[in-house]
Amino acid sequence: MTTTKSDAHAEAKELKLERLIDAPVAKVWRCWAEPDLLKQWFCPKPWYVSDVRMDLCPGGEFFTVMNGPNGEQFDNAGVFLAVEPHRRLVSTDAFRPGWVPSERAFMVAETTFEDTGEGQTRYTARALHWTVEARKEHEEMGFHEGWGKAADQLKELARSL
Amino acid sequence: MTTTKSDAHAEAKELKLERLIDAPVAKVWRCWAEPDLLKQWFCPKPWYVSDVRMDLCPGGEFFTVMNGPNGEQFDNAGVFLAVEPHRRLVSTDAFRPGWVPSERAFMVAETTFEDTGEGQTRYTARALHWTVEARKEHEEMGFHEGWGKAADQLKELARSL
Repeated sequence: MTTTKSDAHAEAKELKLERLIDAPVAKVWRCWAEPDLLKQWFCPKPWYVSDVRMDLCPGGEFFTVMNGPNGEQFDNAGVFLAVEPHRRLVSTDAFRPGWVPSERAFMVAETTFEDTGEGQTRYTARALHWTVEARKEHEEMGFHEGWGKAADQLKELARSL
Repeated sequence: MTTTKSDAHAEAKELKLERLIDAPVAKVWRCWAEPDLLKQWFCPKPWYVSDVRMDLCPGGEFFTVMNGPNGEQFDNAGVFLAVEPHRRLVSTDAFRPGWVPSERAFMVAETTFEDTGEGQTRYTARALHWTVEARKEHEEMGFHEGWGKAADQLKELARSL
């Protein structure tokens, strides 16, 4: 396959991780779609999620509050862009509900769930940024460690359901 | 009504125009929803639209090519965010189809169609930007003249249907 200039540019704005999860797609999907399950894996321990609002439809709110061990607190506000049950979930921080532009269009998060045919799920999470600078910033903030640990927590949770 | 700091900030990122159109909502909507009609008013003459691709659904492509009298040619690529027939249409240049971030998240365009109850339509077009700087840039590019002339062309076209 030939890599065009445009493909290479898109890749330069992307961060990605993949996990093979020993649980069927339906269980992995539940970990994303049910707020009480999402809370259990969505940020790397000892950080924790204290509040979740999710309206699983295009344009619906996706809001979480992340808390650190020293009292840190961060709101993550955004919306869902695409909701394809058991297949794909896309969200972004670029909007507030009502399609109102947010303070900053930083990234799109795209998650795909693929049945490998053996009761396992290939789980892929991508962060797509508007600029190469934002991708670098996200990498320096610890994307691989943070999203990686969260994905491992998701993996354990899905197996336990 | 009290204006909060957050309202004021949102307003500082917004440009807006309004027209009372002497045609029912269904006809004004058609001018937006049918590519052959859209071409006739969407950019101020003597500029013209040579190509339109529109897939009227959330996430669907919205692409136009604008041509100037001296051979200028500009592609406008984006997607629809919300499609509420006869009521509201929202699009943005922030994505390519598939929710891929574009080169720049510049603005959201929100159009509303309101039946005034006398066979007329209150037509409102808003450009909501991610930053105050982008709003200023758009104003300096001639938002009011450009979108204003286009809205007047739309007004004439809808009346003639």
